[in-house]
Amino acid sequence: MKHARMADDSLATVYVCITCRRASDPDAEPRPGAQLADATVRAAQGSDIAVRRVRCLANCTRGPSAAVRANGGANSWTYIFGGLDPAAADALIEGARLLAGAADGLLPWRGRPEPLRRGLIARVPPLDFMEEIS
Amino acid sequence: MKHARMADDSLATVYVCITCRRASDPDAEPRPGAQLADATVRAAQGSDIAVRRVRCLANCTRGPSAAVRANGGANSWTYIFGGLDPAAADALIEGARLLAGAADGLLPWRGRPEPLRRGLIARVPPLDFMEEIS
Repeated sequence: MKHARMADDSLATVYVCITCRRASDPDAEPRPGAQLADATVRAAQGSDIAVRRVRCLANCTRGPSAAVRANGGANSWTYIFGGLDPAAADALIEGARLLAGAADGLLPWRGRPEPLRRGLIARVPPLDFMEEIS
Repeated sequence: MKHARMADDSLATVYVCITCRRASDPDAEPRPGAQLADATVRAAQGSDIAVRRVRCLANCTRGPSAAVRANGGANSWTYIFGGLDPAAADALIEGARLLAGAADGLLPWRGRPEPLRRGLIARVPPLDFMEEIS
């Protein structure tokens, strides 16, 4: 079996918020965010994608939430998604792969899994981002 | 007059989305996001905070939007805010200062300007983020 690489060597990282609750059932345990994290860790097995559990991406009203960033963030945009459920784990890994393969650091729309289309919350520029005047 | 520093030397960077429209008046020009960017550039004059105009932070339903990141992003969380208006420019600069001064890379709640409290959309971990299991 191929071992998962350490984060430093990974092509991309998925950050999954483990504190996300469901508005309709806020006391449910395990929390939907934790379940999504577990499913994403499983979906990443054997891939070059790292998964990191996070205590809160502050997208609390539209969770469960996850963020995806490639290549250490130097030249990749970071994407934040909401409204996810454990079934979105494969979509997150596929999105991370797509982003890692994008020369311009932008997650392509073409081929982007459906949960990452309808669940887009926001995106943040890469560290090497230069101003866009017009 | 003190010259604004280049981004590389700045303590923190504010990214302002210049494409944000207003739902109630989507065709208004200049766009509210561009007005917020202009106001933020003015508010940053003489400070160590860099301002970058961005064509789209993808927070389109809850704009105008901006993101704040300190110290090159290596050990600072990135915060995304929405529902801003040009009057929030000073708040963005003050928030950037607060974040730059936070040893733990987290924007403190205490002293955080009101527009950055009610307008929080999401946040993204720093590049050196390690997993939080529980």
